[in-house]
Amino acid sequence: MAMYLAEFLGTLILVLLGDGVVANVVLKRSKGENSGWIVIATGWGLAVAMAVYVTGWVSGAHINPAVTLGLAAIGDFSWDLVPGFILAQIIGAFCGAILVYLSYKRHFDETTDKDGKLGVFCTAPGIRDIKWNVITEIIGTAMLLIGVLGIGNSNNNAGAIGALLVGFLVWSIGLSLGGPTGYAINPARDLGPRIAHALLPIRDKRDSDWGYAWVPVIAPIIGGILGAFVYKFFLNMWI
Amino acid sequence: MAMYLAEFLGTLILVLLGDGVVANVVLKRSKGENSGWIVIATGWGLAVAMAVYVTGWVSGAHINPAVTLGLAAIGDFSWDLVPGFILAQIIGAFCGAILVYLSYKRHFDETTDKDGKLGVFCTAPGIRDIKWNVITEIIGTAMLLIGVLGIGNSNNNAGAIGALLVGFLVWSIGLSLGGPTGYAINPARDLGPRIAHALLPIRDKRDSDWGYAWVPVIAPIIGGILGAFVYKFFLNMWI
Amino acid sequence: MAMYLAEFLGTLILVLLGDGVVANVVLKRSKGENSGWIVIATGWGLAVAMAVYVTGWVSGAHINPAVTLGLAAIGDFSWDLVPGFILAQIIGAFCGAILVYLSYKRHFDETTDKDGKLGVFCTAPGIRDIKWNVITEIIGTAMLLIGVLGIGNSNNNAGAIGALLVGFLVWSIGLSLGGPTGYAINPARDLGPRIAHALLPIRDKRDSDWGYAWVPVIAPIIGGILGAFVYKFFLNMWI
Amino acid sequence: MAMYLAEFLGTLILVLLGDGVVANVVLKRSKGENSGWIVIATGWGLAVAMAVYVTGWVSGAHINPAVTLGLAAIGDFSWDLVPGFILAQIIGAFCGAILVYLSYKRHFDETTDKDGKLGVFCTAPGIRDIKWNVITEIIGTAMLLIGVLGIGNSNNNAGAIGALLVGFLVWSIGLSLGGPTGYAINPARDLGPRIAHALLPIRDKRDSDWGYAWVPVIAPIIGGILGAFVYKFFLNMWI
Repeated sequence: MAMYLAEFLGTLILVLLGDGVVANVVLKRSKGENSGWIVIATGWGLAVAMAVYVTGWVSGAHINPAVTLGLAAIGDFSWDLVPGFILAQIIGAFCGAILVYLSYKRHFDETTDKDGKLGVFCTAPGIRDIKWNVITEIIGTAMLLIGVLGIGNSNNNAGAIGALLVGFLVWSIGLSLGGPTGYAINPARDLGPRIAHALLPIRDKRDSDWGYAWVPVIAPIIGGILGAFVYKFFLNMWI
Repeated sequence: MAMYLAEFLGTLILVLLGDGVVANVVLKRSKGENSGWIVIATGWGLAVAMAVYVTGWVSGAHINPAVTLGLAAIGDFSWDLVPGFILAQIIGAFCGAILVYLSYKRHFDETTDKDGKLGVFCTAPGIRDIKWNVITEIIGTAMLLIGVLGIGNSNNNAGAIGALLVGFLVWSIGLSLGGPTGYAINPARDLGPRIAHALLPIRDKRDSDWGYAWVPVIAPIIGGILGAFVYKFFLNMWI
Repeated sequence: MAMYLAEFLGTLILVLLGDGVVANVVLKRSKGENSGWIVIATGWGLAVAMAVYVTGWVSGAHINPAVTLGLAAIGDFSWDLVPGFILAQIIGAFCGAILVYLSYKRHFDETTDKDGKLGVFCTAPGIRDIKWNVITEIIGTAMLLIGVLGIGNSNNNAGAIGALLVGFLVWSIGLSLGGPTGYAINPARDLGPRIAHALLPIRDKRDSDWGYAWVPVIAPIIGGILGAFVYKFFLNMWI
Repeated sequence: MAMYLAEFLGTLILVLLGDGVVANVVLKRSKGENSGWIVIATGWGLAVAMAVYVTGWVSGAHINPAVTLGLAAIGDFSWDLVPGFILAQIIGAFCGAILVYLSYKRHFDETTDKDGKLGVFCTAPGIRDIKWNVITEIIGTAMLLIGVLGIGNSNNNAGAIGALLVGFLVWSIGLSLGGPTGYAINPARDLGPRIAHALLPIRDKRDSDWGYAWVPVIAPIIGGILGAFVYKFFLNMWI
């Protein structure tokens, strides 16, 4: 139960600070309006780091079903805990999104761009082409898992800076691979807030784009498992 | 007395470097004029880190009454020291703001935007709506306390990088939750410089917006105490 | 073989995340379009750090023939391993570039700027003047080797943050010395992706600028060896 | 002699990477042209960190006469070494500036803005008002010394990250206090490159602004000594 609560709080923090930075850049009359990709990518990277510092010592701070499933697939995490972890992550992401809505309530009211308002909650591709969107998310999430496992390798002795490095990994993925799809690379980060968007009384909102919703769920899971196996393959060659 | 002096110097450094970065971005003919939110948020985050490195080993470097009250509320800090800490923080912030004024004196002279000049000293919301401004500041400061307590948890062994991580936490909060109100999240940081604005002979200044002044004092205190209790709740579930 | 595989994977990650950030900034309808030099330099710096964390404990993560040759030239690396290292680096860079192409496939399709599309893969100078382009790349790569050797000096006890510091070194070189030539400072990073550009079925592409291709190969090698000897000269004076 | 060589190389690296980033932002057809204050401040901060990592274990990496004099004034550094340190720093800065010129040679040729070309080498105030320019540089350099001494305090156990933190300190000072004068805060960093500007055959250059040259020499020295004494005062109260 302690671990589930940690995943809940960690993913809540992730989305509060992650969706928060998108709100700051996208919504009208916000102080960070139009401050660009460096703000968004840095904000998401730091969101990950902070979430992991607060909760990592309790549950490992997966805060991402793709991480949970990737680790389980290669035998580094117990399958028994998987359902509870994923559920806690989605609920945490949902609650984090509600806090973002409350933080930026009046700016949602003032913003007329309906796509922008949805974009605070969940990802949408720059060019909608499902096949290629799936490929982008798979590559990004595979990189995430390779990075997480690589940083966490005991030979690095990452210790106290491990969480910071994982945040920098997501900073890097956002800067470099976030361009086409907005880098969900995390089913909970996308699905939980999308549900929040559907339920919240956001003024003048569009639909929650459910036709695309499966992409940032399925593709990161494939990518996460793939990345974990790729890392494991190399690790087996190295040791 | 040593601790009070540390809080004084720490908050002075915080405001010198924090209000300084706003001056650089906002004031006319400054080299950083209009350099955007990434500059402001990075500047404030580093300001916190530097203040904590200089003074943290003496007093813990609260440099923020919301931190002091939050820690006291959950029994992690002695109530006897609270009044002196808060007073030292406000005086330090006041003195830091005077140094910012001296550093940017001629640029204050050249700037005609009266709101901008006030904005160097203290926060003002993007959309003035007291209820929602209060909620934003409560959420931001609660996140601050959860982050500070989370980073400081002994399981993280943060050690020498602890102060840097707290700076990165404020960097993150600024990027992600600073949009609506300019993230006071610190009563001393807002009130001390506001008093300085009222007293300093700034050329062609507006009033110091006292009607809003209670928001960045009261809301961060509520948020700080709330955040401390939320963290404590989770901690009790975890250990 | 383990070390060659590490160099392969490390350089693949370097180019996936490094060329990826250029794609994000340069290609049409990407979320980071036109987000500027801070994004590119930060992205490349973090790409280096991540590549080194994943593979550094296996092979030292040269991920750059100029580093491999520089270290070999001063006797810090076995010449026997040099050919395999360089080959693995070039193949890794080639594969990383293909993954960038797949990640940004539809954005390559939409982009009409042929120079921009080539620029995702390999460097081109701002002002084409071979003599001065060579000098810029020599200075940049010499700085790289001096920095790598300096950070790695045992007196620094860099330990777990060593890889991060090397990433920050490349961040610094990009910000400061990347202006004239786009800082190849790495023959594999430039040649591997250039070959990929030549072979990939990129829509409406230009030639791969083979007339310039030798500059970012030869000059970094000269610079790397020069930098290694400069550092060694100082080190001999210091100890 | 080893220490003088370290100060020479350290200040050379500082100016190569520091003046380099200004060249990248200011000069025509450079890839970082007009990329803004975040690039300049980040570039200078990282330049300091890299210079200190390469040379800090030999000489302490003052790389700044204001640091050398500040430390000597409070008894933390031998006066016997002061002249050699300062001379090595100025010569190093001079040589670093020549390397910047060589790196950006063709971009100097193409740039018509004479003030911009001078600005690559040395500082000039946004608003020329000697009294206030002096005050700004004093405050900035006092903050530098307080920060350097604070970070270096043994209670922080900064160890391997000490050099990075000093770099972040200069990043912070640049973001926050660099607006009015361009933050020389270092006589060698300003004077050495100014001499280089005077001697180098830069196409179509202006005079080297010798009328202002004393400000970024004298004011940082005053500020450095002042800051060292302020820190010492607080330290005496704390221990």
